[in-house]
Amino acid sequence: MQAEIICTGSELLLGYVQNTNADYLGHELAALGIEVVLQITVGDDWKLMEQTVREALERADLVITTGGLGPTTDDITKDVIAAVLGVPMVTDDESLVRMREYFARRGIEMPDIFIRQASFPHGSKIIPNHKGTAPGALIEKDGKVIVIFPGPPRELRAMYEASVKPYLLQVPGRGEVLRTRVLKLTGIAEYVVQEILRELGDLTNPSLGYLAMPGEVHLRVNAHAVDPAEAERMVGELTEKVTALVGEYIFAVDDEIPEKTVGDLLFRKGLTISVAESCTAGMAAARFTDVPGSSRYFVGGVVAYDNHLKQEVLSVPAETLERYGAVSEQTAVAMAEGIRRLTGSDLGLAITGIAGPHGGTTAKPVGLVYVALASARETLSQRLLLPGVRKAVRIGTVNSSLRIVKNFLNRQAE
Amino acid sequence: MQAEIICTGSELLLGYVQNTNADYLGHELAALGIEVVLQITVGDDWKLMEQTVREALERADLVITTGGLGPTTDDITKDVIAAVLGVPMVTDDESLVRMREYFARRGIEMPDIFIRQASFPHGSKIIPNHKGTAPGALIEKDGKVIVIFPGPPRELRAMYEASVKPYLLQVPGRGEVLRTRVLKLTGIAEYVVQEILRELGDLTNPSLGYLAMPGEVHLRVNAHAVDPAEAERMVGELTEKVTALVGEYIFAVDDEIPEKTVGDLLFRKGLTISVAESCTAGMAAARFTDVPGSSRYFVGGVVAYDNHLKQEVLSVPAETLERYGAVSEQTAVAMAEGIRRLTGSDLGLAITGIAGPHGGTTAKPVGLVYVALASARETLSQRLLLPGVRKAVRIGTVNSSLRIVKNFLNRQAE
Repeated sequence: MQAEIICTGSELLLGYVQNTNADYLGHELAALGIEVVLQITVGDDWKLMEQTVREALERADLVITTGGLGPTTDDITKDVIAAVLGVPMVTDDESLVRMREYFARRGIEMPDIFIRQASFPHGSKIIPNHKGTAPGALIEKDGKVIVIFPGPPRELRAMYEASVKPYLLQVPGRGEVLRTRVLKLTGIAEYVVQEILRELGDLTNPSLGYLAMPGEVHLRVNAHAVDPAEAERMVGELTEKVTALVGEYIFAVDDEIPEKTVGDLLFRKGLTISVAESCTAGMAAARFTDVPGSSRYFVGGVVAYDNHLKQEVLSVPAETLERYGAVSEQTAVAMAEGIRRLTGSDLGLAITGIAGPHGGTTAKPVGLVYVALASARETLSQRLLLPGVRKAVRIGTVNSSLRIVKNFLNRQAE
Repeated sequence: MQAEIICTGSELLLGYVQNTNADYLGHELAALGIEVVLQITVGDDWKLMEQTVREALERADLVITTGGLGPTTDDITKDVIAAVLGVPMVTDDESLVRMREYFARRGIEMPDIFIRQASFPHGSKIIPNHKGTAPGALIEKDGKVIVIFPGPPRELRAMYEASVKPYLLQVPGRGEVLRTRVLKLTGIAEYVVQEILRELGDLTNPSLGYLAMPGEVHLRVNAHAVDPAEAERMVGELTEKVTALVGEYIFAVDDEIPEKTVGDLLFRKGLTISVAESCTAGMAAARFTDVPGSSRYFVGGVVAYDNHLKQEVLSVPAETLERYGAVSEQTAVAMAEGIRRLTGSDLGLAITGIAGPHGGTTAKPVGLVYVALASARETLSQRLLLPGVRKAVRIGTVNSSLRIVKNFLNRQAE
C-alpha cells in the first residue's frame, strides 16, 4: 500500500513553521507497513492544489491532506478535493452542532463564517476533532482512500490515533510491517559507532540508521517482514548484537526519558539526590526537575562555576584544587561528597570538566569531564572524553551522568 | 519569479530526519522576493523523481533539489536531471582533484565509488562544497534555472550563502522583496497578544504572523514591496506600533540571544552575577553559561529546590518562609540577597515560583513566579504570572528573568 501526503499552507513554504505533520505521518504510516512515496507542500493556490491532488490520486492508494480546513476563504482543501472527485459539498449537521457547543462553552456565539468548517465533500465520513473546531474527513472512492486532517499538529495527532489508525489497521494488503527500535548513545562520536559496528557486516534487513545530534547518537534498528512478530524478532536480535559492542554508551531506548527512569528508581528506593555542577552549570539539575514530582527525590544543587565556590560552598580542599586542578578526579570526588554533606541528600552527583571552546590543553583537552557519585558507603568516579563542541559536550555530560546514576541504582539490591 | 524545491531521500519520508532544508530555503528565497509555490519530498525512486523534476521545470522558473549526490547507486538526483534535460553526464576534473585532496588530508586514498560525485549533467556550473565531499551544480537551460544541492544542512547552507544567493541576487525580475522582523515575547499567552493587537485593525501589508512555543510567542512583522527600503520602512513602522502595545513582554528581537546580550552588558560594565533558583532549578544558570566565555561574569548559583537549602545555604530567614511562603516576594528578595552574599558577586538573581502541574492554589496558582535582583544599592522584585504548562512556565521564567536583568543593566549609566 502506497501513500502520498499533501500539506497545505503558504506559511509552511515560507519556512517559518516547521512541518512536523509530514514527519509524524511518515513515521506512523511506516509502522503500519504503509510506504509514503511522496510528500508535497503546496500553498493556498487552487490550480496547483488541484493538480497535486489529482496526480496523487492517480498514483497512490492512500492520499492524506493536512491543513486548509479553517473558516476563511483561503482554506480551500475540502473544496479542491470535492472538485477533483466531482462531488458537491454538503453540510454535516452533527459537526455544526458540535461547533456551536464548542463556542457556547467559551461563552461566545459561533460566527457564521465557521459554517464552512462543517461542510465536506459528499460521501465523507466525519473524523471528530476533540482538540479544536475543524473536523476532518475520510473518503473512500474507486478503491482509493482520502484522509483530510486539519493543520494543528496536536489536533491531527489526536485524530490519527483515535480514528485513522484503527481504520488503517483494518485495511488488508498493507504489505510488510516495519518495526524499529532506537538506541540512544552518548559520549561517543557517530563515526566511531559506525567503525565499531562495521564488524556486523553489510546490513539490509534488519538494518541500522544513524542520526547524530548534540551530545547524542541515535541508532535506529529497523526490520520489515509480513509477520509483525518476525519483524520484532529481527529487531531484537540485531539490538542484542549492537548492545554487545556499544552497550556501555546507551543511555536511553526508544522514548525512554532517562531522568524519569532515574527519578522512578530513586523514589522506589526512597533515596534523595543533589547535584554539584561546574561545566554543565545547572543543566543536570534542570533535567532532574523537568520531571513533575521530582521534589520527592531531588533536593537541590550548587553551580560552582567559579573555583572559590568549589572551596567555600562545597568544601573542596584548596590543596586538591591546587595539586590536581578543578578538572580532576580528586576535585569531582570532593565536590560529590561536599554537595551530599551540604544538602543532607543520600546521593551526591558532581560534574567538572572542560566544555570549551577555550580552556583546553594537551593534557586536559576540551571534552574531558569527571563525574563522581557519592553515597553513604562509597564515592564512584568516571572519566569521560566527550566528542563535539561546547553544546554537545554539555548535553553529552548530562546524558552520561544520568547513565552513571541509573547504572549505580540498578546495581543496588532492591 | 517562482520556485519549486525538490528534496530527495527515503529517510525524510520515514519521518525520522527533520527536513530543515525545505524550511531554510523557503525562508531564504522569500527574503529575496522569490516565491516557493511547491515543495516536494520524494524517495530514491527514479520514475517518481523524473516525473517530479519534469513537472517542476514545466511550471517554475527556478527548481532546487537537495540530496542524492552521494557515491552510492541510490544517489540518482544528477542522473535524473540529466535524463530530463536530455544531456549526458560528464566528469568535472577540478571536482575530482578536490575530492582526492579531501581524502588525502585524512590520510585515506579516495575509493573509486566517489568518482560519481564528480559527475554532473553537461552544462553544469559547479558549486564547490567546502564542508563536505559532494559538490553541487547550477544549470541554466531554456530560461529556467536548476540548482542542485547535497543533503547535509551544514553543507547546503554554506553553499547557498557563498554561491547561490549571490547568483540569485543578480537575476532580474525577482519581484517584490519580503522583509521580516521577529519580536520574541514571553510571559503572555498568544491569544492575549492577539486580543491586544486587534486594535491595529486588519493588516495585510505589512502583516503580523504568530508562532507560539513553550514560554515564548514569536510575533513576525512582514512587509513586501518592490523597493527593499520601502519594505524596511513598513516593517519599522508596524514594529513601533506593536512595541507601544506589548513592548514590556519583548525579550529578544530577530536572532538576538538574550543571555548573550546580558553577558555582553555585564562584561562591559565589569559586573559579575550569580543565581539562586527554585522552580527553574538550574535552567537560568545553564542559559547564562550557554555563552562561551561566560566565566568572565557568571560566578555560580544554588538550586534551592528543597526549602531547607533556602534557609541553610541562602540564609533565607525561617520566619520569612513561614510567614510568606517559599513562593513570595519576601523569599525571592532574601534569596537574591543571600546568593549575592554567598558568592560575592555584584548582582544576585533569584527565582521562586510554582511550575506545576501540582502545588497550585487559588491564592498562588501554577505559573506564579517571583523574580528578584539584588545589587549593592537595592533589591528589585517582580511578580510574574506565566501562562501554559510546566515546561512553558519554566522557560518563560528564564526568558523573563533575562529581560529583567537586561532592563536593569540598560537603565544603569555606563
